[in-house]
Amino acid sequence: MANVNRLKERMLRMAQIGKTENDGVTRLALSGEDKQARDLFIQWMEDLGLHVRYDDFGNIYGRLEGTNSNEPALVIGSHLDSVPKGGKFDGVLGVLAALEVVESLMENNIQNDRPIEIVSFTNEEGARFTPQMLGSGAVTNLFSKEYTYSRSDNESHTFKEELQKIGYLGSQDNRINPDDVDAFIEMHIEQGPVLETNNKTVGIVEGIAGFSWMEVVIAGETNHSGSTPMELRRDSLVTAASVIKAIHQWAHSRKDGTAATVGEIKTQPGIMNAIPGTTTFTLDVRHQHKDGFTSCIDEIREVIKETVHEESLTCDINEIKTHPPVTFAKSITNLLEEASKKHDISYHRMTSGAGHDAMYMNTVVDTAMLFVPSIGGKSHCEEENTQWEDIEKGITVLYDTVKRMSNV
Amino acid sequence: MANVNRLKERMLRMAQIGKTENDGVTRLALSGEDKQARDLFIQWMEDLGLHVRYDDFGNIYGRLEGTNSNEPALVIGSHLDSVPKGGKFDGVLGVLAALEVVESLMENNIQNDRPIEIVSFTNEEGARFTPQMLGSGAVTNLFSKEYTYSRSDNESHTFKEELQKIGYLGSQDNRINPDDVDAFIEMHIEQGPVLETNNKTVGIVEGIAGFSWMEVVIAGETNHSGSTPMELRRDSLVTAASVIKAIHQWAHSRKDGTAATVGEIKTQPGIMNAIPGTTTFTLDVRHQHKDGFTSCIDEIREVIKETVHEESLTCDINEIKTHPPVTFAKSITNLLEEASKKHDISYHRMTSGAGHDAMYMNTVVDTAMLFVPSIGGKSHCEEENTQWEDIEKGITVLYDTVKRMSNV
Ligand SMILES: NC(=O)NCCC(=O)O
Ligand SMILES: NC(=O)NCCC(=O)O
Repeated sequence: MANVNRLKERMLRMAQIGKTENDGVTRLALSGEDKQARDLFIQWMEDLGLHVRYDDFGNIYGRLEGTNSNEPALVIGSHLDSVPKGGKFDGVLGVLAALEVVESLMENNIQNDRPIEIVSFTNEEGARFTPQMLGSGAVTNLFSKEYTYSRSDNESHTFKEELQKIGYLGSQDNRINPDDVDAFIEMHIEQGPVLETNNKTVGIVEGIAGFSWMEVVIAGETNHSGSTPMELRRDSLVTAASVIKAIHQWAHSRKDGTAATVGEIKTQPGIMNAIPGTTTFTLDVRHQHKDGFTSCIDEIREVIKETVHEESLTCDINEIKTHPPVTFAKSITNLLEEASKKHDISYHRMTSGAGHDAMYMNTVVDTAMLFVPSIGGKSHCEEENTQWEDIEKGITVLYDTVKRMSNV
Repeated sequence: MANVNRLKERMLRMAQIGKTENDGVTRLALSGEDKQARDLFIQWMEDLGLHVRYDDFGNIYGRLEGTNSNEPALVIGSHLDSVPKGGKFDGVLGVLAALEVVESLMENNIQNDRPIEIVSFTNEEGARFTPQMLGSGAVTNLFSKEYTYSRSDNESHTFKEELQKIGYLGSQDNRINPDDVDAFIEMHIEQGPVLETNNKTVGIVEGIAGFSWMEVVIAGETNHSGSTPMELRRDSLVTAASVIKAIHQWAHSRKDGTAATVGEIKTQPGIMNAIPGTTTFTLDVRHQHKDGFTSCIDEIREVIKETVHEESLTCDINEIKTHPPVTFAKSITNLLEEASKKHDISYHRMTSGAGHDAMYMNTVVDTAMLFVPSIGGKSHCEEENTQWEDIEKGITVLYDTVKRMSNV
């Protein structure tokens, strides 16, 4: 069995790094706090005698050899970064649960045939460097090294500079190699209301909704706010407001689980007394069904263009990243289900609305995920929370599944 | 007569400081560029033998003594700061026209009885430190010294720090003293379409629209963009969009010249994959009629509250600064009119929609303004422009009026 108290202790220790006033966490990717969290994580892995390395994207790995170390490894983990004023479970839970499972296996003298690797991916949240899941996307070749290195934060610091600055720019040779990997499992908080609503303890994740992340730029005309009559204006923010409402209504009325969110918005020149000449905002669209995915994304682009056109302004829609819905490996979800049943833990087979590193790992190896409930379905906020009893059950399922899968 | 070519030369020289790619100007208050512009302006005044001083808000004065230097002074001027990517006439024209008038009077051996003071006020635009017209508001006691000094820019630098940094924190004794001032005249570009539409060359400004500058904060609930169903969201930006549209429609449908603008907007946490929990935006409302002013501002506050209430969110409306419409001194506008007639220059009596330092100066001394046309009514943008022939006519009217008023 895994030791939930040790896991809790480590979780609470990690939650000190970047702790916010209201008991949340701000630990942006490649920040000083991220470095502290990484250092501590590595310390813990080295204390266990794992072989630690990090690659040229700062993804960190800790390897436990098996009796049969030529076998492809079982990889488990998640991420250590957070959104600004985020919660203390998002990401960290999956990393420290992996560590706990490995430590428990060692402690219980359970001999693994295949090697087990714990992983923490860089910049999963995308809160500092867009797009999200940059470290896992880069290591699975969905993003080029040039693209990844040149991503920059709001203060024009690049990913590469910041990675170097915190001392985590490792060797390309240290990347995970899909040929040497048997499977990837990621445990995570649900970040939504499904488990709570269905009164289930663990979520067996069969797939992840596809997404399209875009930047929309609406162009009108800057002019003085005091001396320009209302009827002569071409205000890009007023049109952006129409577009934001249209996007919301569109997603709302589909009633097929499509989600659309405008999270960040900026005007130019961005001062009180000038009509915004340009308004730029991000758009995040999620859709679960493989069949309808492309037409869904096409549709929202049309809604935007039409709304802008109606108000006689112009717009650009720049794609940041689009990924279709993914389906996880049945072989693994079945094992997760068996483990849940064996321990009499209530479970729910479900799709994740949130993206995860598992989504990109799934493009190169057999992958699945395990969710534990988020209280009130809340995440990406300080109130994010999960019951320790639920975490205990989740880690029981994970421990059992890793134990089984690490034996050839 | 004044020398428009010398004025043009100085204007073009000033336009080099903070020049943008598209021939506009970025010269934010108390920036390095502002310092350069101040240094040059002072150099020019000292070359003319004027007595130069600056006060504890960085307002700069250049004094030409008169034959009767105990008489209250005639003050003329405007401001040197700009909005980001603004135009090269806004503000600077009034400062350098004042300098040109003084130099021409000296050159033409016109003896002034009362002293003439040229002034350049600090941070008129409010683009770096809100609110607008901070230097003139502070020196006329509309803003306390504490309030003024503590205003801070987007990078949390305070007004006082930045004033000190560029070396323009002068003595309180150097402030303008209303008892020693006879009148204030400000020449400025119109920044709107009225003169052009009416095919007139100068605007004789009888007053300025009142304004209310506010910050609106709408509070919803942050949550994950991917895993939170549309029907469970309380998205502050979607409600802000409704409010922005309602504000626009409200001002538009009044048809009484009321203008309302949302210029700057920000979401929290402000990342692509979180529903905005809080959205904050600025609101700038202008209304010309003294009678209807208070009810107009009350009305828009109601429109905002009702719209937010309908969507079951909450909001705060924080007042930054409100000032009722002002009426300028008839004695001065009549002189401006006489000068226009004398030189056969077409003029238009009008109200300014834009605020100016003259608005605050008017609270302590007799004040008026003189406008020259803005091509296409454009300002607070790089395309802002004015014909030199119009400037020549404007400075003719100003020269004549200053000549008359500086004689007791
Ligand atoms: N789980 C999570 O918050 N991942 C970030 C990527 C996304 O926005 O879905
Ligand atoms: N004239 C001008 O742009 N002044 C700034 C203050 C205002 O916004 O009206």
